[in-house]
Amino acid sequence: MTALENIIEQLKTEKLDGYFLPRNNMFLGEDIHPAENKILKLTGFSGSAGTLLIKAQGRSVLFVDGRYALQAPLETNSQIIEVVCTAEISMTKWMQQNLPPKFRLGFNPNCLSIKDFDSFQKTLSNIRWISSSEKVDPSMPLVKGRVFEHEIDFAGLSREEKIGEVLDFLNPTDAAGWLFCAADSASWLLNLRAKCLPDTPIIRAYVLVERNGNTTVFGGNLDYGENQYPFSTYPLEALEETLKSFKKQSLYIDENKTPQAIKTLFEKYKITALPHKDICETAKAVKNSVELEGMRRAHIRDGVAMINFLSWLEENAAGKTEMEIVAELHGFRQKQEHYFSESFETIAAFGSNGAIVHYQPSAKSNKALQNGSLLLLDSGAQYYDGTTDITRTLAIGKPTEEMKANYTTVLKGHISLSRAVFPQGSSGQSLDALARSPLWKHGLNYAHGTGHGVGCFLNVHEGPLGISTGYSPYPLQAGMITSIEPGYYKENCYGIRIENLVEILPDKQNGMLCFSPLTLVPYDKNLINKDQLTPEEINWINDYHARVFAALSPYIIGAAKDWLKKACNKL
Amino acid sequence: MTALENIIEQLKTEKLDGYFLPRNNMFLGEDIHPAENKILKLTGFSGSAGTLLIKAQGRSVLFVDGRYALQAPLETNSQIIEVVCTAEISMTKWMQQNLPPKFRLGFNPNCLSIKDFDSFQKTLSNIRWISSSEKVDPSMPLVKGRVFEHEIDFAGLSREEKIGEVLDFLNPTDAAGWLFCAADSASWLLNLRAKCLPDTPIIRAYVLVERNGNTTVFGGNLDYGENQYPFSTYPLEALEETLKSFKKQSLYIDENKTPQAIKTLFEKYKITALPHKDICETAKAVKNSVELEGMRRAHIRDGVAMINFLSWLEENAAGKTEMEIVAELHGFRQKQEHYFSESFETIAAFGSNGAIVHYQPSAKSNKALQNGSLLLLDSGAQYYDGTTDITRTLAIGKPTEEMKANYTTVLKGHISLSRAVFPQGSSGQSLDALARSPLWKHGLNYAHGTGHGVGCFLNVHEGPLGISTGYSPYPLQAGMITSIEPGYYKENCYGIRIENLVEILPDKQNGMLCFSPLTLVPYDKNLINKDQLTPEEINWINDYHARVFAALSPYIIGAAKDWLKKACNKL
Repeated sequence: MTALENIIEQLKTEKLDGYFLPRNNMFLGEDIHPAENKILKLTGFSGSAGTLLIKAQGRSVLFVDGRYALQAPLETNSQIIEVVCTAEISMTKWMQQNLPPKFRLGFNPNCLSIKDFDSFQKTLSNIRWISSSEKVDPSMPLVKGRVFEHEIDFAGLSREEKIGEVLDFLNPTDAAGWLFCAADSASWLLNLRAKCLPDTPIIRAYVLVERNGNTTVFGGNLDYGENQYPFSTYPLEALEETLKSFKKQSLYIDENKTPQAIKTLFEKYKITALPHKDICETAKAVKNSVELEGMRRAHIRDGVAMINFLSWLEENAAGKTEMEIVAELHGFRQKQEHYFSESFETIAAFGSNGAIVHYQPSAKSNKALQNGSLLLLDSGAQYYDGTTDITRTLAIGKPTEEMKANYTTVLKGHISLSRAVFPQGSSGQSLDALARSPLWKHGLNYAHGTGHGVGCFLNVHEGPLGISTGYSPYPLQAGMITSIEPGYYKENCYGIRIENLVEILPDKQNGMLCFSPLTLVPYDKNLINKDQLTPEEINWINDYHARVFAALSPYIIGAAKDWLKKACNKL
Repeated sequence: MTALENIIEQLKTEKLDGYFLPRNNMFLGEDIHPAENKILKLTGFSGSAGTLLIKAQGRSVLFVDGRYALQAPLETNSQIIEVVCTAEISMTKWMQQNLPPKFRLGFNPNCLSIKDFDSFQKTLSNIRWISSSEKVDPSMPLVKGRVFEHEIDFAGLSREEKIGEVLDFLNPTDAAGWLFCAADSASWLLNLRAKCLPDTPIIRAYVLVERNGNTTVFGGNLDYGENQYPFSTYPLEALEETLKSFKKQSLYIDENKTPQAIKTLFEKYKITALPHKDICETAKAVKNSVELEGMRRAHIRDGVAMINFLSWLEENAAGKTEMEIVAELHGFRQKQEHYFSESFETIAAFGSNGAIVHYQPSAKSNKALQNGSLLLLDSGAQYYDGTTDITRTLAIGKPTEEMKANYTTVLKGHISLSRAVFPQGSSGQSLDALARSPLWKHGLNYAHGTGHGVGCFLNVHEGPLGISTGYSPYPLQAGMITSIEPGYYKENCYGIRIENLVEILPDKQNGMLCFSPLTLVPYDKNLINKDQLTPEEINWINDYHARVFAALSPYIIGAAKDWLKKACNKL
């Protein structure tokens, strides 16, 4: 019996019609260890986001976003799993339309935020939610991780200063404290990192800051080693015992970041929840000057690794497989100072694999490079001083005119947003069309966001900043970092994506904001159709390439330097 | 004692700390007769939107949007009225921050939608809302209006067909009917119009459509004359009596379009309210082919009137006042076939008056035209077959280089959005940046929306379509009509706005949508700095001017034809 069949049996015993299984754990984020991935275990789907609705009768349903619309059906068995793409129909709408009235749906209150649970309850009048984690949820314990200090030279602010900001917030209120349940907030607040996850150095912990400054960390299988820290450390399981002592007091929580299970504990011990946007989230979105300097330095080293790799690729592409590409690039990055890990699993997608938006090569799908198509390469690293994330699309051999036309159209969108000037506090959604508009003119589009926030030696996808067609209202400010990554995907043929990380700067001339590229790697000129570009766009590319050359050339030698020189020549 | 002082006295008697007074009446829209304008009467403010918070102690507060930030203080007495611009701080936030706890606020439940009231109650925990219309609200009866038929040749669909669509909606439900409370929905549904308001031919009525097809109209002071209609007509006051017969049944309403007073009646008679987006609103947003043809024809006639006026202005501008301009333009429009009325009060704003976004000339403010500045002219008409709304900014004498530079920047924004191609169902907010981005590059912006929907011989501002930085999520579809009107306002100097109405068409090449201009009037070439334009932008202007000439020249003679020819010459 498979693990999924086991759960379905269990559903029948528990008189449940279904079970609602998000991919995350009690930290609610997308960053989990593969060994903790329940959806991977139950269905084979390896994507970084998704929700599984297990049904007692009939096929289970896997909800994935537009990035995984092609990948999910390839990785799962269609006789057992129905894949639903939420770009076509929202999960809520699907559940409204397809589940019968009084559908008894089990769920784990640790894995659903208070906000999401609340909104599901309000919208899905056909569903009876039954809290039933212990009996049904597949037990996947957190992978253990060794904790280490994120040095002040990289963090810029001490943990005392950061906790001080929380106390400044609490001081004028009546609250007894703040319970932070987001792992990246905990990591940022305490200047701690850990090696638990392959690509993200967060500690998985809840942090309770009391108004008197007492700070308690409830860690998810953390190993602190010999180090002494100025706060108490307990396992996550001790949280309930601690909360008991806050009976009839009030604590701040962010309902978007706190599991429904905590709300249940609050109710049990008559603790008043004071809902508020996580102030660590807001604070860490705006990088301090030390973090910004670190991000800039990390991008120079990452650029050097990329140039060495690209120069190697030019000579060695023939016959190499995607997995060999991934390994080679990894080797160049690993040599860089302050390298810690990749920041996500590298996407090296050749030809038709490139049309699978968040494809990662596996032994089964692994393609060898051949002349006449495109290699989409989306990769990045965690350095102690910063996090990188870059996508370049490369011509292998001679590209077709259509590939060049579409690449240039995506590049126009990338440049249009990169050059944008915009008022303080503009939202991501208000800027999104600048990147898409050149594509729309040719009937092209892409089923993913245009930009995401990036943490500093933290999550490579960091909320709340986002640039997308959908709801992304977070006001942009100087000091924030976002990706700019329009794309175009031609099913069964090829994929194009061009991604830089950029920092938001005040525009010198007029009190507005603008973007400045952190990423320093030339665009593939073999794919640029100059006739499609305006003089301003050509100037922008030439200026960017000049900047790349100036920043990287001191650190590059030999054949790679010649490659860089050629790649950065004027269009 | 002034009317305002009278109310303040009354507040004290009623033990109220304040009174909340929106500008609208029980139809909740912005279209009211000046004789019905409570805020005008109480404060002198003549703008088309605003809310007055009368306080028992201290100055009353007038909330206006960005369009009226300059005008409202000019029209009101600052010793009595504090003007708050909601572009700076939202009304809700202001009330949260500035009103003490347990503030007893009177309001008229006829003048606040269920949705707004609900949201105020949730957000403003410091306020005790006291329904108290009869004792405090200034009584301003609806102006009487004569009803007439909107002929099928203009409406395209008969009222039976439209009511049939409502019945098709009701049929599979258990509801007893639908109560439509929006005046333009009633007008559209019944193919009726009236001459009550100076600029908007709506009938002010609620319409009840029962599932058996029975239709009852509750009119606000309507005069049906001798005509016989296939439905019952009652005065608005008879609604309660009718609702009694729906006890324990259910009726659809749109909570955004229905006053809180109706909810109270529903509760009184145990009628279940079924909240749903007004289906008339959705249906009339997409114009049928007869309406679209009518809109196109109306814009040709409106263009002819504008050309005759502009040709006259070129010879006669010297020394003319804004009010003379308004009268002259009115004369040219009035002569056109199917002319019914203006579609709003003409804005003729010269020089510094142009910086007051929705300025209308009065005897007090009336400026005479002089060489060396700009005339901003925003006007439109109601024709039986369509509604127009156009803004042109005109150089009077020789403009400065700065004026030309800023005009051309606004024009670039206007063209950028006009040329946009975008996916089916895009929201207005996702397109807004296309119009603003060229302005942002120069540190410019405008404190109003970029576009609004337009009714067909109905409201010139028609929801739900909108294009703005803020929340304007309504999905755009072929057959909808919107304005495109970026601007720039230099306080104390001049104003620039360039506005066309456009219809949304399927893009022939690629299954996307695009805009096609309905408005047919050349841009003032004296204000265009060609060096700022790309070849594509120049081509777009030349193509548009060629189209204007081809469409209008058959109907224009004499000096005006020469003027048109010159105005439409290639750049």
